[in-house]
Amino acid sequence: MLIEQIHEPADLRKLNIKQLRQLCGELRAEIINVVSEHGGHLASNLGAVELTVAIHYVFDTPVDKLVFDVGHQSYAHKLLTGRYQDFHTLRQKGGISGFPQQDESEYDAFTAGHASTAISAALGMARTRDIMRGDNEVVAVVGDGALTGGMCYEALNDAGQSNTRMIVVLNDNDMSIAPNVGALSRYLTRLRQSKGYIAVKHGVRDRLEKHPKFGEPLYRALSKFRNKIRSLFVDDKFFSALGFKYIGPVDGHDLRHLIRVLRRAKGEDKPQLIHVVTQKGRGYQPAEDHPVTFHGVAPFYLESGSRKQEGEMASGKVVASQLADMADNDIRICAITAAMPMGTGMDVFQKAHPDRFFDVGIAEEHAVTMAAGMASQGLKPYVAIYSTFLQRAYDQIMVDVCRNGLPVTFLIDRAGLVGEDGETHQGAFDLSFLRSIPGMVVAAPRDVRDLKKLVEISQDYSGPMAIRYPKGCEDMGPGIQSQQRFSIGQWELLSDGRDVMIFAVGRMVPMAMQAAIELMGKGISAGVVDARFIAPMDKNLLLRKAAGVRLVVTVEENVLAGGFGEGVLDVLATGNIGIPVLTLGLPNRFIAQATVAEQTAECALDAMSIAQRIHRRLSEIEEAQR
Amino acid sequence: MLIEQIHEPADLRKLNIKQLRQLCGELRAEIINVVSEHGGHLASNLGAVELTVAIHYVFDTPVDKLVFDVGHQSYAHKLLTGRYQDFHTLRQKGGISGFPQQDESEYDAFTAGHASTAISAALGMARTRDIMRGDNEVVAVVGDGALTGGMCYEALNDAGQSNTRMIVVLNDNDMSIAPNVGALSRYLTRLRQSKGYIAVKHGVRDRLEKHPKFGEPLYRALSKFRNKIRSLFVDDKFFSALGFKYIGPVDGHDLRHLIRVLRRAKGEDKPQLIHVVTQKGRGYQPAEDHPVTFHGVAPFYLESGSRKQEGEMASGKVVASQLADMADNDIRICAITAAMPMGTGMDVFQKAHPDRFFDVGIAEEHAVTMAAGMASQGLKPYVAIYSTFLQRAYDQIMVDVCRNGLPVTFLIDRAGLVGEDGETHQGAFDLSFLRSIPGMVVAAPRDVRDLKKLVEISQDYSGPMAIRYPKGCEDMGPGIQSQQRFSIGQWELLSDGRDVMIFAVGRMVPMAMQAAIELMGKGISAGVVDARFIAPMDKNLLLRKAAGVRLVVTVEENVLAGGFGEGVLDVLATGNIGIPVLTLGLPNRFIAQATVAEQTAECALDAMSIAQRIHRRLSEIEEAQR
Repeated sequence: MLIEQIHEPADLRKLNIKQLRQLCGELRAEIINVVSEHGGHLASNLGAVELTVAIHYVFDTPVDKLVFDVGHQSYAHKLLTGRYQDFHTLRQKGGISGFPQQDESEYDAFTAGHASTAISAALGMARTRDIMRGDNEVVAVVGDGALTGGMCYEALNDAGQSNTRMIVVLNDNDMSIAPNVGALSRYLTRLRQSKGYIAVKHGVRDRLEKHPKFGEPLYRALSKFRNKIRSLFVDDKFFSALGFKYIGPVDGHDLRHLIRVLRRAKGEDKPQLIHVVTQKGRGYQPAEDHPVTFHGVAPFYLESGSRKQEGEMASGKVVASQLADMADNDIRICAITAAMPMGTGMDVFQKAHPDRFFDVGIAEEHAVTMAAGMASQGLKPYVAIYSTFLQRAYDQIMVDVCRNGLPVTFLIDRAGLVGEDGETHQGAFDLSFLRSIPGMVVAAPRDVRDLKKLVEISQDYSGPMAIRYPKGCEDMGPGIQSQQRFSIGQWELLSDGRDVMIFAVGRMVPMAMQAAIELMGKGISAGVVDARFIAPMDKNLLLRKAAGVRLVVTVEENVLAGGFGEGVLDVLATGNIGIPVLTLGLPNRFIAQATVAEQTAECALDAMSIAQRIHRRLSEIEEAQR
Repeated sequence: MLIEQIHEPADLRKLNIKQLRQLCGELRAEIINVVSEHGGHLASNLGAVELTVAIHYVFDTPVDKLVFDVGHQSYAHKLLTGRYQDFHTLRQKGGISGFPQQDESEYDAFTAGHASTAISAALGMARTRDIMRGDNEVVAVVGDGALTGGMCYEALNDAGQSNTRMIVVLNDNDMSIAPNVGALSRYLTRLRQSKGYIAVKHGVRDRLEKHPKFGEPLYRALSKFRNKIRSLFVDDKFFSALGFKYIGPVDGHDLRHLIRVLRRAKGEDKPQLIHVVTQKGRGYQPAEDHPVTFHGVAPFYLESGSRKQEGEMASGKVVASQLADMADNDIRICAITAAMPMGTGMDVFQKAHPDRFFDVGIAEEHAVTMAAGMASQGLKPYVAIYSTFLQRAYDQIMVDVCRNGLPVTFLIDRAGLVGEDGETHQGAFDLSFLRSIPGMVVAAPRDVRDLKKLVEISQDYSGPMAIRYPKGCEDMGPGIQSQQRFSIGQWELLSDGRDVMIFAVGRMVPMAMQAAIELMGKGISAGVVDARFIAPMDKNLLLRKAAGVRLVVTVEENVLAGGFGEGVLDVLATGNIGIPVLTLGLPNRFIAQATVAEQTAECALDAMSIAQRIHRRLSEIEEAQR
């Protein structure tokens, strides 16, 4: 196996073109294998294999800087840069990250996670080189999906004017995670279909290579022909208007051609954009056939591509189908997502009400302000975005929605700990950044039943509201018998306690219930309140229930700084309730990849840890009082 | 005066072209007059007079929706929509807002404040119309400056594909606040200079009109000629690639032509972009000559254009000149701003080190991630952005800078209350959103001396750091004799107290000192600690000083939710210090326009109010203990 001999890209540069092609096959096999076992991003990574090999072949990494956008396409890169041996630990606790990580390898020039950042980071590196009078190249690899994000445009606009030497490789597979949206996507399609681009159709080369006798010479002749007509490269206007030299489109699976184009670009003293066309899922039939499903996948059977385990019920699906039902009788209701129709479950709504569903691409800022525009004219928009990506629209939520008191509802999926995607994807901050915005209602259901009730309540609420929930419904516990109805700001006393009152949020409510049972075994009477509204708080219930116990405890799946617990502290301080308070939540650091259960335990937010910490604090209090 | 007869745009539609021109003159005079007295945005508003008149003349506002981006160009609009009588109250407490405000008038379709949002909001309105089967037009007026913001691109990309009927009017004055940057700006310049655009040179018409006999006929002939060559409109590629029909460039001061172009665009069932060229400061010589200075101005003398009062020393200038000095001996230091070289004072740095200064346009997201890219390669970037605009880059600060522990320093100007710009511009949230980000050092100096020390300290600090300060140095008080040196996280005990300890932040430190003096007169001994680091906190000093008093007080110029005070509460709770705490800060709402002093008093954060509130709480505590 060639792949075993590649310890660093320098080893790769000794291979000939035939060996490079063999290597591509091996890289694909390894990626498919590991992802089928542990899950991960498959289709995008398969599409970028030749491109990655070509870049490392032509450029002098790590002296030349290679920046991947997001990193859904960085697996081949990881395998080529000394991480083949450990690759089987992908996305597991202590293992290889699913994204580029500066701490993991010097070849990972920039740690990514959220989309559309690579050109900005690369421009920063290029300008550093210029200031330091260095001579290295800087290459940013950006998917066409990421290109729907406004940051890319801001960076192109800046780089294009300053005329900084850098190369942007546009990896165009005509998809972000879902099929791509936006006018520019159509524009790229036009470029792809224009006369200058004569691609060897997918699979032609593969078939040619199966006939070693005449396949290779024929292919070489074809390549030669194509080389001649490179002068037919399309005359782009869009990127040129932004000051970039446009090169392309280029077949992203034709190694020889790719290498030639990259070599020619190298050393040119201006900003260049190379438009590379790739196929998502390339080389694995099920992924080629279903690139959306195989973007990010759970473990699956190699043969069939079918999932090994039935997935748990997704919260997003529950919300979306309820919303679709509500929309049947309420024309005001519409739904917006930012390139995540399936991830957020909103494809369910899309099917029911296609005319009231809007996928705006990876453009969270625009999504939120557009929703504000809709709400200002009488619509009732629901914006479904993952917690971590909603951070992108913090300012728009504040200035465009909340400042105007508009009835936009945020459906915040992947709230709290998210597992294998790790540091950059944790939904660990939404309670903090949302509750500090005046006028925002922030809610978190403890189970599916309450999730539905919250969505129901939102329909008649006339202001901005956020509902945050984890990916899977089961994460939210068994569903304790709930009070029939509740209104905005109303908490629920689930059980009373003499010694301790635990005020818990969302997925932490069932944890707190279990902890209370645990404590009971130690002779401690702990009650539990479901504090389902983080803002506004149920001050009356809080003050009343806090007054009679020895210790108040808050539990949340959010950083402590600025979170729910601190809000409780402020209510108690204002109410002049001088009682010991123990605030439990996520620690003040970025939580690394692991399973959600592992992360919960690591943060000492599992039921047993919660009970232990309460017990310990009670002992300390007794100690101090002696 | 015609202006007095215009109570709503319907009145305007009865005028003939000559009267409309007269009206434009009157609008200009009124704008210049009021702004010269109270300050405000001048140059951009003067440039948009004819454009605004033409839009209200052609479109059926308020049925047709008119959305201004930011609203630095909405004064003429306000004068035409029933606010002429009150216009003299511009930007004053209880008066007319400097920005469009939905609550102020039904003609203000969307409340703006931050840049680049209008196309998103307008698209939301257009889609609402389509869902509701309405027939109104939606017009977004966007400056070429705002077009450097990525959101605009996200919205154009979305609107262009969906082919929604809407009109974007690009008001191109070749400036944002400072001269515009970016490749697209150059592209617009090329469009302006292309053969299709034959503009009557600035002033030609004015001069023609001074000769009523032959001026008007000659001008009409010229217009007619231009009308003929409208077919010579430039063949744009950029906006076309984004799915928009491009129309232009159009002389933005030629009323007749403008009206003609707008009429033709009205009712066309597709997204259109009309490129209108205007002159910033048009009609007031000092503003035409110095459009940057006259973008936003303090009161000035009409004749000369010179300021009525010398401005206080700007904090930004202090920081920038110190930074420039530091950079003389430290090649790592560079400075980045987002379209605010003068506002942030960074033009001082720019003059000293032009090769290490980067104005990226209105593109805060890109600014921050580019800084991260620089820091990852060994540079020491300083990012100077107003507090309110830094909200745009919350996610990038978290994921790209802090998550990677990169040494980017944020120089956060206009922190706390900002006065006349009102709700959308308050720097009221930075302590909350920054202190919840793991690894971020958050500091606020109490005076110029400490501001300088903090900048000095940042040079050798190897992680992310934020320094927030108000616009004017004097706002930060007289400068109490400070300890010689301090390190990250170290607070300073300014005076000791037996009854009360006040922990204050930034501009609130001198307020707290005065409050302590006030309290002394009432027999209450209050000490003051300068809590200059909001994160990390000086826990030792806090716990030590809190332990011995009857009441702990926190004072900050930030919302209470998630702010400094709540952080103090958490430290005390964790330290098991059961002591009454009074948290003072900005209330949980958006603070309206007024002077900073008025706003401070309104929020009860002036020295006298602070003293009163402490006194009252102490009484309550005594009451409760009886």
